[in-house]
Amino acid sequence: MPADVLPATKRTRLKRAHKRGHYDRETINAILDATPLCHVGYLIDGKPAVTPTIQWREGDHVYWHGSSASRALRNAAGMDVCLTVSLIDGMVLARSAFHHSANYRSVMLYGTATKISDPAVKAEKFKIFVDTLFPGRWDMLRPMTDQEVKATTLLSLPIEEASAKIRAGGPVDDEEDYALPIWAGVVPILQVVGEPEPDPRNLPDLKVPAHASAYTIG
Amino acid sequence: MPADVLPATKRTRLKRAHKRGHYDRETINAILDATPLCHVGYLIDGKPAVTPTIQWREGDHVYWHGSSASRALRNAAGMDVCLTVSLIDGMVLARSAFHHSANYRSVMLYGTATKISDPAVKAEKFKIFVDTLFPGRWDMLRPMTDQEVKATTLLSLPIEEASAKIRAGGPVDDEEDYALPIWAGVVPILQVVGEPEPDPRNLPDLKVPAHASAYTIG
Repeated sequence: MPADVLPATKRTRLKRAHKRGHYDRETINAILDATPLCHVGYLIDGKPAVTPTIQWREGDHVYWHGSSASRALRNAAGMDVCLTVSLIDGMVLARSAFHHSANYRSVMLYGTATKISDPAVKAEKFKIFVDTLFPGRWDMLRPMTDQEVKATTLLSLPIEEASAKIRAGGPVDDEEDYALPIWAGVVPILQVVGEPEPDPRNLPDLKVPAHASAYTIG
Repeated sequence: MPADVLPATKRTRLKRAHKRGHYDRETINAILDATPLCHVGYLIDGKPAVTPTIQWREGDHVYWHGSSASRALRNAAGMDVCLTVSLIDGMVLARSAFHHSANYRSVMLYGTATKISDPAVKAEKFKIFVDTLFPGRWDMLRPMTDQEVKATTLLSLPIEEASAKIRAGGPVDDEEDYALPIWAGVVPILQVVGEPEPDPRNLPDLKVPAHASAYTIG
């Protein structure tokens, strides 16, 4: 992944590093919107910790949340964090071990996590969260209670100090290695969404809503 | 994810937190072995950074590597890190926003990253890396050169301070909400491996090796 998969020679590496860096907001947004899974880096007693969680984007910010008792959120609130979103798209098999690589898309966001405390703002953000992932679902749900809003910590991070990296395509081998009889290529990896599995306790005759059957990721 | 997806009530949360923690090595190994993608947390000038990279496990250690020029590796070598492996298995749609969740498997490893400098040991570990992901591939490849070994930094972390968390199954709603006519259930997410895509510069008549066509993830 970013400069950390099997490295190329220095010359190739530099060329690739150039090719792999993307900083335009359209590219960054597309990656953030491709998957809800993110990894938040923060400090616990001065040491790094990385917690997987669910993020969503609204305009120029990403948001994540959890129990107000969460150590990960307590340690991130008001502090420097790094929020990384990554998708692995394939394994790249080259003719030398050295040029093996992975295809991926990733975004790293750095900044100070802001805790959002106003209950009305929190509730509004949770509605956007649900409806971003599952359009129209919020209004179908049992309404959120004040106690539930209170029990939930909401953090946000601006999309400012942000970078995206992408590797795509086949292997890039040393020129002389192309003459070798070694199979090279890409083994694609993708995420797919299965058929929605109804809760056995659903009331009879409830249909799968479009936001569940049409859900996509990746 | 670990205590950070839509939280349940305190009582349910505590019950879940208990259910979600797994510390046996078999569970931890199975998650580490399910995907090569990991996220390494380390410090840059005292601030957290999270870099996606590829990990592999050999016995009681995980390994990762990259260009010797990599800032992520330079900042991790000899320092405290957190290496997290996560797989998202589904979105859990409940009858209230609050009880929405995600199914996932994750492992967090904490410890000091050790840089492995002996070239012979490094080369042996790279062979294990390639053959762990793609059995038998190492011996088919153009051999790794001393210069390539030198240009690659290899780090390891013991599987000691380790924890796994797993959430699986359907939504857990407040008892009174089961009477509501709201579709609830799980939208499964899985990773699949596509047909290997041969490099257009492959020599004629090269067959896709079994380690590429049989590759699995997840």
